Amino acid sequence: MIRKAFKMKVYPNNIEEYARRHNPIWPELEQLLKEHGVHNYNIFLDSETHFLFGYAEVESEEKWNALGDTEVCKKWWKHMAGLMETNTDDSPVSIDLKHLFHMS
Amino acid sequence: MIRKAFKMKVYPNNIEEYARRHNPIWPELEQLLKEHGVHNYNIFLDSETHFLFGYAEVESEEKWNALGDTEVCKKWWKHMAGLMETNTDDSPVSIDLKHLFHMS
Repeated sequence: MIRKAFKMKVYPNNIEEYARRHNPIWPELEQLLKEHGVHNYNIFLDSETHFLFGYAEVESEEKWNALGDTEVCKKWWKHMAGLMETNTDDSPVSIDLKHLFHMS
Repeated sequence: MIRKAFKMKVYPNNIEEYARRHNPIWPELEQLLKEHGVHNYNIFLDSETHFLFGYAEVESEEKWNALGDTEVCKKWWKHMAGLMETNTDDSPVSIDLKHLFHMS
């Protein structure tokens, strides 16, 4: 299991809408994440910079990356694209952070 | 249980030393954290900005804050103070992030 963290960026005017669309997320997206070995997935907001900080426990990077090949994920990215910094395929600009410390 | 995230800032030249001092941390500090209801504590580095992102599952904010009143924690803060942005009491400058989303 990999403890994964990454940052994304939401546009300041869209923070409430970003949060609203995550509570709840689409049931088919939640099912997809679980099928791809994603657990304990959390997103936090840095209100100073509007960076989003994601933390998730994933079975493998391969399964995590494979999410992007699914229709449900592509539809979700398209749905969210207006709210945040994205790449040309609508995926969020996401930068991995480096794991320095763990205590169980 | 509260899923807590916060950011701190390490000085760029001290990243390796910061990581070294956490692997392992002092056994008495680990014991103290567990006694104060801290679990699954992780620290990640944003290599672009030198912000550190902490994620921890804590029993309460009161127990978390009480850590700072202990001698072991004060000694740890003093030990680490040269490596990162700190307050006048040697505690790290730490800014809480807002929890937007959770999936189990």
